[in-house]
Amino acid sequence: ATVDRAADFANYFCTYGFLYHQKEMLSDRVRMDAYYNSVFKNRHHFDGKTVLDVGTGSGILAIWCAKAGARRVYAVEATKMTEHARQLIKANRVENIVEVIEGSMEDVVLPEKVDVIISEWMGYFLLRESMFDSVICARDRWLKPDGVMYPSHARMWMAPIRTGLGEQKTSDFELSMGDWESFIDETEQQYGVDMSVLTKPFHEEHVRYYLKTSLWSNLNPHQIIGKPVIIKEIDCLTATVDDIKAFSVKVSSSITMEKTRLGGFAGWFDVHFRGNRNNPGHDIELTTAPSTNHSTHWGQQIFLVHPARCVDDGDNITVSFSMSRSRENHRLLDVELTWELTELSGKCSTPVASKYYIE
Amino acid sequence: ATVDRAADFANYFCTYGFLYHQKEMLSDRVRMDAYYNSVFKNRHHFDGKTVLDVGTGSGILAIWCAKAGARRVYAVEATKMTEHARQLIKANRVENIVEVIEGSMEDVVLPEKVDVIISEWMGYFLLRESMFDSVICARDRWLKPDGVMYPSHARMWMAPIRTGLGEQKTSDFELSMGDWESFIDETEQQYGVDMSVLTKPFHEEHVRYYLKTSLWSNLNPHQIIGKPVIIKEIDCLTATVDDIKAFSVKVSSSITMEKTRLGGFAGWFDVHFRGNRNNPGHDIELTTAPSTNHSTHWGQQIFLVHPARCVDDGDNITVSFSMSRSRENHRLLDVELTWELTELSGKCSTPVASKYYIE
Ligand SMILES: Nc1ncnc2c1ncn2[C@@H]1O[C@H](CSCC[C@H](N)C(=O)O)[C@@H](O)[C@H]1O
Ligand SMILES: Nc1ncnc2c1ncn2[C@@H]1O[C@H](CSCC[C@H](N)C(=O)O)[C@@H](O)[C@H]1O
Repeated sequence: ATVDRAADFANYFCTYGFLYHQKEMLSDRVRMDAYYNSVFKNRHHFDGKTVLDVGTGSGILAIWCAKAGARRVYAVEATKMTEHARQLIKANRVENIVEVIEGSMEDVVLPEKVDVIISEWMGYFLLRESMFDSVICARDRWLKPDGVMYPSHARMWMAPIRTGLGEQKTSDFELSMGDWESFIDETEQQYGVDMSVLTKPFHEEHVRYYLKTSLWSNLNPHQIIGKPVIIKEIDCLTATVDDIKAFSVKVSSSITMEKTRLGGFAGWFDVHFRGNRNNPGHDIELTTAPSTNHSTHWGQQIFLVHPARCVDDGDNITVSFSMSRSRENHRLLDVELTWELTELSGKCSTPVASKYYIE
Repeated sequence: ATVDRAADFANYFCTYGFLYHQKEMLSDRVRMDAYYNSVFKNRHHFDGKTVLDVGTGSGILAIWCAKAGARRVYAVEATKMTEHARQLIKANRVENIVEVIEGSMEDVVLPEKVDVIISEWMGYFLLRESMFDSVICARDRWLKPDGVMYPSHARMWMAPIRTGLGEQKTSDFELSMGDWESFIDETEQQYGVDMSVLTKPFHEEHVRYYLKTSLWSNLNPHQIIGKPVIIKEIDCLTATVDDIKAFSVKVSSSITMEKTRLGGFAGWFDVHFRGNRNNPGHDIELTTAPSTNHSTHWGQQIFLVHPARCVDDGDNITVSFSMSRSRENHRLLDVELTWELTELSGKCSTPVASKYYIE
C-alpha cells in the first residue's frame, strides 16, 4: 500500500507541530542524558564534521552537535516546528553552523554527504511510527561510506510480567457489554429497531479495544517475573526497511519468581551509541526498561494475557512473536504472539495465541 | 484551499467507522426521539416516496423511513459502517426497500431523484464538521423540485452565561506556564541550551489551548444569565455553502439575573422538521439548549470570558460574532467575538474582542 502524504501529515506529523509535545520529549531526562552524553563524550565524532539531524524538532540535537564542534549541521524537520528551531538555534548562537531545512527527509536535497547522522526516531516499542524508515532513507543517500550513525544500534526486549491490568480491562469490557445489552432493549422498545445483529461486531470491536490493544505503562521492575529476552537487534548502519517491516522470532524465557501469575508480556527497547568499527566511541546506552527512578516517556507496551495464568519459579515460557505493520496505517503495528508454558515437572500447556494492536 | 480526500478520511471519517461512536449517537434520546417523531408523525411525507439518507451510519434513519412506508430509500455512507448497516437493514426486514451505497455523497450516482432527503448532519454548535456541505450537494443534485428536507430548518443560538470554567482553565494554564519556567531553568543548567526564546510561542500555544478553544459542556439552565439570541437561521431547502462558510452578525442580549458574573458565552443549535410550504408537516423540534433532563451529546460550546465580568439585571450586552472555517482543516471553525456592556445607568464598557477555535 502506498502512503498518502496528506493523510500521513494530518495524522502523524500534526502532534509534532506543538511545543507542548516537543517539551514532553525535552523533559525526558533519560532520553536527554543519553543523547547529551553520546554527543559530548564523543566529541571526536563531531569536531570539524558534517552532521545530519533527521527530524530535528526543536533543534536540540543539532544545537548540541554544533556545540560539540561540528563544522556544519543540517537539521531537517517536516513540521512548522522549524520556525521555533530557527529561533532557538539563533538564540544559542549556532546559526552559522546549523541550517534548518523544512521538508520531509525523503524529499530533501543536501549540498554534501555527511559524517554523522543523528536522529531520535524511536517510537513506542521502538518501531511504532515507522520513523526509522526515514533515517534509513537519509543514510542511504547522505551518509559518507565511513559515516557514523547516532544511535548505532537498537534492540527490542520482551519479558513476562504480572499485572492487574487484565482484570481491570476485562471488567471495563464487561461493563460496556452490559450497557450494550440495555441499549439493544431500549432501541427495540422505544424505536422499534432490533439491533441485536450488531452485538457480535460490537463485541469484536470492544475486545479489540479493551483487550487486544497494547497498553502504555511504566512498570515497576518487580512486576517482571521472568528473564527479559531480546527479540530484535538492529544495526543502524546496515538495517533495511525489509528487516524491520515485518519479522518473526521464537524465544524462551524462564520464570524467576515463585508462585505468581502471568498477566501479560511487556515490550521495550534500548539503543546504543557506539560509533562504528573503524571509528568507535564511548558506549552510551538509552534504555526504556522498567525502572523505579529512570522511567521514560516511552514506558513499556503491555500485551495482556487474560485470564492470568499461574506460573512458578523455573517454569519455562516459549514465545513466538511476530510483528508487522497495520494495513490501514503503516505507522501502527500488528503483533501476533503465541506462548506456551513448560512447567518444571515437564508438563506442557497448550499454546495460547493472540493478536494485538499497537495503536 | 482544496480538501485532500485521504487526509479528510483519516481525520474525520475514521471515528464514524466505530460502532462505539454510532452507539453514542443512537443512545442520545433527544436526538432519537426528534428524528423518530419527525418520520412517524409525518408518514404522508414518506408513504410511497423515495428517500435519500445522507450519511446513514448504522442505517437507523433509513430503516425508519422504510417502516414509515417509503417505496425506496438510498442510504449513503462513506465509511465501512455500511457493512453493519446492511446487516441491520436485513435483520429488520427492509432490505427490499433500503439500498446501502458505500461512498462519499459527493461521488455517488443515484438511479433517480428523490422526494425526501433526510440526514443527521449536525456537529457541535451546528456547523462543526461542515457536513451540511454534503447535504447541500446531495440536495442540489438529487432532490426533486418539490422535495422535502429533513430537517427543514436550523438555527444557532447564543447566550451570556456564568461559569467557573474560566477560573479553572486560567489556573491550569498558570500551572503549565510555571512548569515551563522550571523546564527552561533545567534545560539551561543540565544541557547548556537556553530555551527562553520559546517562552512566547509556548505561551501563545497554551493560551490558545486553555483559554481560546471552545469547551464542550452540558450547562445547567440556571447558568444562563441573559436572553438567548439567534445568531444564524438556515433554511435547509435554499441555503448555499457560501451562506454557512463564513458569516458575521451583531446581536444584543439583556442580562436577566441580578448581580452575577459574565464568565462566557454559550452556543447551541436547534433544528426543525416542518416539511415545506406546499407540503407541510407536524413541526418537530430538536434542541440542544441547556436543559436539566433533556441534554444531548452535542451539549453546548462555551467561549470563555476571563477574567469574569460583574454584570447586573438590565445590563445590555452587544455581541459581534463572526464565524469562518479553519484554514488548516475545513471541518473546524474559527470564531471572532467582540462584546460590549451597556449598564442600566447608561455607562458603556470598552469592547472586548477575542478569537476562539472550535476544535
Ligand atoms: N520523514 C521525516 N522528515 C522530516 N522530519 C521528520 C520525519 N519523520 C519524523 N520527523 C520529525 O522528527 C521529529 C521526531 S521527535 C525528535 C525531535 C528532536 N530531534 C529531539 O530529539 O527532541 C518530529 O519533530 C517529527 O516531526
Ligand atoms: N460526504 C459524506 N458522504 C457519505 N457519508 C458521510 C458524508 N459525510 C458524513 N458522512 C457520514 O454521516 C454520518 C453522520 S452521523 C449520523 C448517522 C446516522 N444517520 C444516525 O442518525 O444515527 C457518519 O456515519 C459519517 O461517516
